[in-house]
Order: sequence, then C-alpha cells, then structure tokens
Amino acid sequence: MRNLGLLTDYYELSMMQGYFYKDPETEAVFDMFFRRQPFGSGFTLFVGLDPLIDAITDLHFGSDEIEYLRSLNAFRPEFLEYLEGFSFRGDVYAQEEGRVVFPNEPLIRVQGKLIHAQLLESVILNFINFQSLIATKAARVAIAAQQRPVLEFGLRRAHGIDGAISAARAAYIGGVAATSNVLAGKEFNIPVSGTMAHSWVMSFDSELEAFRQYAQIYPENCILLVDTFDTIKSGIPNAIKVFKELKSEGRKNMGVRLDSGDLEYLSKAARKMFDEAGLSEVKIYASNELDEYVIDQIMKNGARIDAWGVGTKLITADGDPALSGVYKIAAKGTDEELRPTIKVSNNPEKITNPGVKNVYRFYGRDGMMLADLIYLRGEQDVLDRMIEKGESLRFNHPNIDYAHFSCSDYARTEKLLQPVIMNGKRSRRSRTLPDLQRFAQTQIAVLHPTYKRLLNPHVYKVSITDGLKALKNDLIEECCQD
Amino acid sequence: MRNLGLLTDYYELSMMQGYFYKDPETEAVFDMFFRRQPFGSGFTLFVGLDPLIDAITDLHFGSDEIEYLRSLNAFRPEFLEYLEGFSFRGDVYAQEEGRVVFPNEPLIRVQGKLIHAQLLESVILNFINFQSLIATKAARVAIAAQQRPVLEFGLRRAHGIDGAISAARAAYIGGVAATSNVLAGKEFNIPVSGTMAHSWVMSFDSELEAFRQYAQIYPENCILLVDTFDTIKSGIPNAIKVFKELKSEGRKNMGVRLDSGDLEYLSKAARKMFDEAGLSEVKIYASNELDEYVIDQIMKNGARIDAWGVGTKLITADGDPALSGVYKIAAKGTDEELRPTIKVSNNPEKITNPGVKNVYRFYGRDGMMLADLIYLRGEQDVLDRMIEKGESLRFNHPNIDYAHFSCSDYARTEKLLQPVIMNGKRSRRSRTLPDLQRFAQTQIAVLHPTYKRLLNPHVYKVSITDGLKALKNDLIEECCQD
Repeated sequence: MRNLGLLTDYYELSMMQGYFYKDPETEAVFDMFFRRQPFGSGFTLFVGLDPLIDAITDLHFGSDEIEYLRSLNAFRPEFLEYLEGFSFRGDVYAQEEGRVVFPNEPLIRVQGKLIHAQLLESVILNFINFQSLIATKAARVAIAAQQRPVLEFGLRRAHGIDGAISAARAAYIGGVAATSNVLAGKEFNIPVSGTMAHSWVMSFDSELEAFRQYAQIYPENCILLVDTFDTIKSGIPNAIKVFKELKSEGRKNMGVRLDSGDLEYLSKAARKMFDEAGLSEVKIYASNELDEYVIDQIMKNGARIDAWGVGTKLITADGDPALSGVYKIAAKGTDEELRPTIKVSNNPEKITNPGVKNVYRFYGRDGMMLADLIYLRGEQDVLDRMIEKGESLRFNHPNIDYAHFSCSDYARTEKLLQPVIMNGKRSRRSRTLPDLQRFAQTQIAVLHPTYKRLLNPHVYKVSITDGLKALKNDLIEECCQD
Repeated sequence: MRNLGLLTDYYELSMMQGYFYKDPETEAVFDMFFRRQPFGSGFTLFVGLDPLIDAITDLHFGSDEIEYLRSLNAFRPEFLEYLEGFSFRGDVYAQEEGRVVFPNEPLIRVQGKLIHAQLLESVILNFINFQSLIATKAARVAIAAQQRPVLEFGLRRAHGIDGAISAARAAYIGGVAATSNVLAGKEFNIPVSGTMAHSWVMSFDSELEAFRQYAQIYPENCILLVDTFDTIKSGIPNAIKVFKELKSEGRKNMGVRLDSGDLEYLSKAARKMFDEAGLSEVKIYASNELDEYVIDQIMKNGARIDAWGVGTKLITADGDPALSGVYKIAAKGTDEELRPTIKVSNNPEKITNPGVKNVYRFYGRDGMMLADLIYLRGEQDVLDRMIEKGESLRFNHPNIDYAHFSCSDYARTEKLLQPVIMNGKRSRRSRTLPDLQRFAQTQIAVLHPTYKRLLNPHVYKVSITDGLKALKNDLIEECCQD
C-alpha cells in the first residue's frame, strides 16, 4: 500500500505542529458528517470505510516524507522527530459500510489526542466523500434500471486511476453488477464485463465478417456492437445471421449493444426483429451517456433493454460531483472531562451538534425505517431503558425550535456508530464486497419508496434528543453573549 | 510505479485476443481527440502527457496479472503467453504538454500493430481526459483572478487519491500557484500552501488566544482564519491586535482568510479596517465554494482580495466533470500501405477525419494564433513549399461543405504533432512543471482575448485541407453506397 501520511492538506500538519508545542495532551472528538444530499437524493450510501480503516491504521511518515517536510523550512526538528514516530493511536467509531445515511448525523466519530485526530481530516474526507457519492449515484441508477443489470463503463472519463478504481468498488456496493475496469476487477474481485468496440468492426472489411470472427473467438458469450454503420439496416440483420449460426451450434449468451440513436425506439425495433427471427433469447444492452434520469424515462416507456452500460455520468457523479462531507470538532478537554464545542454560523443549518454523540435508528412494525435520533453519550442508559419499555420518545428538529414529534410506535432500534479502530488498531473485520452490496440492498429495501424517488423525494427525519437540544441551545447562547 | 497493464477496459483485452488470432500483423493508426470544449470554454489545455508516456512505456503484464486474467476463463493460454511478453512497441505522436488545443484536431496519434494500439485506448483517455479538464478549469479560474495567486485546496472533495494528486499537477500547469495537497507537493515538486482550520480556533478558549499562539509558532507567515465567530466584529479586530504585535517585532507576511459570508463586502470592510490600523501590508485571502464565475464577478466589482483558495469546484471540474476525449481508428493496413478508415454517423459532427494526419497552427504578424489546419501526411511536402513561399492556403470547414476561407496573412507556423514514443521508447525528455506552466501561459498569451471569455467565447477555427476534405468525402460516399 502507498504511504498516505502526506495525503493531507498542508494546514493539518502546520496545526499539528501548533498542537505539538502548545497543546500536546488535549483530547478531542471530531465528527464527520455531510450537510446536503447529493443529486437531490432522498438517501446516501456510506461507502469507503474499509479502505479508510486500512489507510488510517497504516498512516506513517517514512524518512522520504520527513526529508520532504524538512525541505519546506516550516517544521522544527523536534516536531519532525515526533512525526517520524507517529502512528494514529486514537479510536474511530463509524456507521457500517453500505448503510443508508442522512445529512447532519455523524458517519464517523474520531476520539483521541487532538494532534492525532486533526491529521485524519483530509484522508477521511477524501475517501468517504467520493466513494459515498459514487455508491449513491450507482444506487440511483440501479433503482431506475428496475433490477436490470447495470455495468460500470467509466474508466476513460474517470478522475484519474484511483478515481476509476475506488469508484468501481463504490459503484459495485451501490448496486452495479460489474465493471469494465480490469484492474478494479483484480484489486477488489468485482466481476468484469465488456463487449466490443467500433474499432473492432472498422478493422474488418465488412460488419458481417467482424461479427463472425468475434463469434468464432467468443462463442460462449457473444455481445455484438451493432451501431457502427446503421443499427436497423445493417447491425441487427448481420447479428441475426451470426446468432442463427451460433444457435444451430447450440450456443447461448447472445446479445447486442446499442450505443447511439434513440435507445427506446431501437430496442423495441431490435426486439421485434430478433423475436421474428426466432431469437427471443438474444439480450439487448444499451449504452451512451446514460444516467438515472434517462434510464428511468426509457424504462417507463417500455424500452426492451435487458442491461445497461453506464459510464461517464456514473463515474464522475454527474450533476453533483462532490459530497459535502465535513469534519468538525465536537468536544475537547482531557480523558476525564470532554467539554462539548460548537461552531456557530449565521446560517442555522451550519451550526454543528456539540458533544460526544451516537445515533439510534428506529424501525416500524412493518420493518421499515422510521427516523434517526442523535443523542449524547450521557443519555445512553436512560434512552436504552425507555426504548426497552417501548416508551414514547421526543424527536426534536435539529434547528427549528418548535418542530418536534413523539414516537412510541417503533419495533426495534439500531445503534449506528460502532467501534472500528480502537487504540489505533482495526477492531472490525473486513467484509467481502458481495456482502457489502447485499447489506446496502437490504438497507435500501427497508427505506420507504417515497424516499427513493429520483426527484423531490420525501425528506427522512434526523432529529436530536431533548438533552442534545438543551446542550446546543446553551452553547449557542454562551457564544452569542461573548 | 504501479503496474498499469490492467488499467484497461475489459473489451480492449478481448479485442486484443481477437486480433491475436485473426489479425496479428495488421498495422493501424488511432487518433485521440475531443469533440466539445468543456465548460463552454474557448480553449482547452492539453495536459497529462508526461505521466502518460511513463505509463505507456512501462505497460506490462506480470505474473499476478496473468494469473488474474487466467482466472476469468475468457483468455486462451497462447494469448496469455503473448501478454506475458507484451510491451508497447509502436510510435506515439502528440501535441506538446501545456498547449492550447481545440476540438476535433488530433492531440495524440498512435501508430503500430493494431493489437498494440488498441490496448492504449483506456489509459490514454483516462490520463488525458481528466488532466486536460482540470488544467483547463484552472486556467479559467486563473484568468478570472486577474494575476492574483490561486491556491488549489481540493483534496477533501477530489475523486480519490489520484483524483487529487494528478489534478494538483494539472491545476499547477493550468496556472495555479500552489496546492494544499502535501503528497502532490512532494511527488511533483509543486509549492504547498495552507492557512488555519476552524478546529484550531475552536480548540482554544478564545479566538485572540488562538491567533496569538499561531503567530508565535508561525511568525514568518501568519495567515489567520477570521470567520469562526464573526468576521467583522471579532475576527478582524483580533487579527489587527496580533498583527500589530507582529509588526512591532518586524514581521512581514501577514494575512487573513475569509471563508464565509459575502466575500466582496467583507474584503472591502476588512481592507478598510487594516488600512486604518496602519496594516496596509496585510493580505486578504478568500475561499468558500469558489469558481471562475464567482471570482470574475467579485473581482469586477472591486473586491480587495489578494489571493484565492479554490477547492471543490476546481478539483471536480464542476459544471462539466468529463472531457469528451475519444480514441478512433483512422487507418489500417500494412507497413507499406495504410488505408484510411472513417466512422460515419447520422450526426455529421461525429464523423471522424480519416487517414494519417498532422496539424499546422498558423500565427499572424502580431504573434497571435490565427487558425489550425489538419492535413494528411502525404500533403506535407506541398504544404511546406506553399508555406515557405507564403502562398494563400485554403481552410475548409470539417463538416460544412460550402464553408471555407483562404489565408495568406500568416507569419509563421508550427507542426503540432511530434514524436514522443518511437518503437516503444520515450523519445521526448520530460520538462519540469514550472516549464510546463510557463509554456501554457505563453500559449494562453498568444490566444486572442475573445477566445478567453468565460461565457460564449469566440470559436477558434480548426479546418481541414483540400486533400483531407476530398478523402473524407470519398470515404463517406463509399460508406453510404454499401
């Protein structure tokens, strides 16, 4: 693994040096959360955790890194010596990878020396913001495709090598069936997939010859690209000739890919031509600048498409290329006493939730998700007793004072933040990628359909307890008196 | 360097296996070009070439990679054996890195065995599409900032590790002064930069104390973040106290960063407060969701901002997160005879330019760029003689038959595609990053300002010669007769 000690914003290091001289023993708690759903989505998938745990537990500064930092003439010898022996020794709590998450609730909580916790900011945000974004886009595309397989074809437009590889992993967790990216397939054991390029067809003297030759080499799985010259007049008729030959040899797994033109019209026309030729088993793949909106519309109009290849707009998170995740200090002090801190702002939505927190997710008797409740660590016991008895709980809006509701009609709860790193060591086993994909699917399944609309979805409620609300109001008042 | 043999779409490998059995000796020429300016820009910067040359000349398949491919049960033993001994042995011609380029002209031309040239598609597109996109975005931001330094702060929202690091390099070539990304700074020797985070201020009991402590540690370069509580009532007054102390010790390089609120208003108010306090040397940095449009507007309204921190919207190429670069076969045959190929389409703009081509760029007597002319290799000698004599040349629109113009008023020309890899070996030395940045700046300097407008710029003319036009028309006719 590449050493990621320096994968950090310069100011994290300059602040670390500050803490090293002024404040080396202070303990702190940071929350990572995001403020706004990407793509106007009703949910986000939390993805990137497992690689992040590896990156955090491996963080170090080798002699190369130290020499580089020395060359910047901004760091003193004692601090560089400290960095040379650095490893992260704090605790990290996180939601489960693949979980459906919402704005303003902590996805990750870091506890430890301030100087340790500060360094994690850039790497946490780099990993989680991007991978959660892509997983969410993939989930939206998969929802639009209504169980038809989606193939991720984005390598050529991805943001660099890792923008392709980590995105392929995230997209798979989000619900994509396979990737075209062979290196991602190897690194994460994702199924790889691909068909044929125009250059194959153009390298032969005729389309029919190109198809025949391909079928000879790949009789087991023969997907032909049919739009090089004219889909209806040339591509489909030539494919029919070749598929009839294959069928007479007992071959299955035949298909065509439509890569231009009107996919709804062409898929219906092609389906009819194949069916009339007695080739109802031939599958129709479609690609070309697709996203969840286009797929949704074409599907709802009854297109006869069996699988979707989605490239550019998935891999670049088109429409919203960044998740707005941030990393904010929530408490500081000593091991014995952590004092909550707050960041105020003229914009109430930017005021942070202070203190050491966790989140309960409530499920209804139908098994569906009801609402999330952020609470303070000190409230845990009281809350647990109330939940055990099925008592009514009060859910307060995080910013609007008069907005709240009560709920006693819950069937079960889950505590969302769980330890993943303790004293700098991984405390949670990696799960396989298919496991993570399944987990994400079960999460999406217990989310009411109104939250899954592509446009203007229902807003899932993330509330705060009475205790957290009181603390927040006290701290805001204190701040404003200054 | 990471082995990038498998950084490829699966279909490149399945087609290579096809060529291996059916067509192993065929020679081919591919062009990489893009179809549409990103961001509605009037120009694009060609960036990513030097890392791409390294990647291509290093392409190979180790035993790990071969074992993985074997496990897919799609590749035959002889082909895997061939891959095990594979290295790219063809030629690559490319425009110079940092050059201003335009749609539909070749940026890269690959010549060699079809089976070799096919493999390069994914890696060329992954590197060039993304890095050119970011360099172009950076150049636009730098133009809007009117010579004020721009700092790239995007790591936390970048698309993965490499989406941050290769973007930092591209942004620097595009005109950014420094990056916050320390690893990118180390890998590419880019100046690194950073200020202070809100968590620093919040980790102290008061803002003034936080500023004082910071100033003690960084007296040489003290940039204070002033918006944690209230910029005008608290941040600036506290900064003034600290700067007066620093100034009495003879310190320079003082500044503040505005990270929220109305940057135009706040910068003017802060400037006035500093000037009245006798601190006219204090610099004002601004950040917070900036892009070229916001900066342009604020600058034109007379904001008093000395440097800009640009993060999310630069690093994610907000507004247009993918460059539309493609890689298309242009000729095939044998070493002795390469026959031009064409990809036709119902959309005339998607019809490719056939044959082995190069591009002349024409400059006027004022030193400014006039127009580009794509020509066939066979036209080189005639064209050179005409140019030497200063004869009038005909520039044909690439798609519209009647549209053409003549030009004899040129002062000099440049041939844009030059060899960078010959027989698989690098034939062009790396240039330093500052050199590349300077080259890009000189390129942008000889581009008339009308092409540099952020919105609706003048469209630079990329034309084709009579010979290329005749060939294109012949091939289109041939195709349509089929």
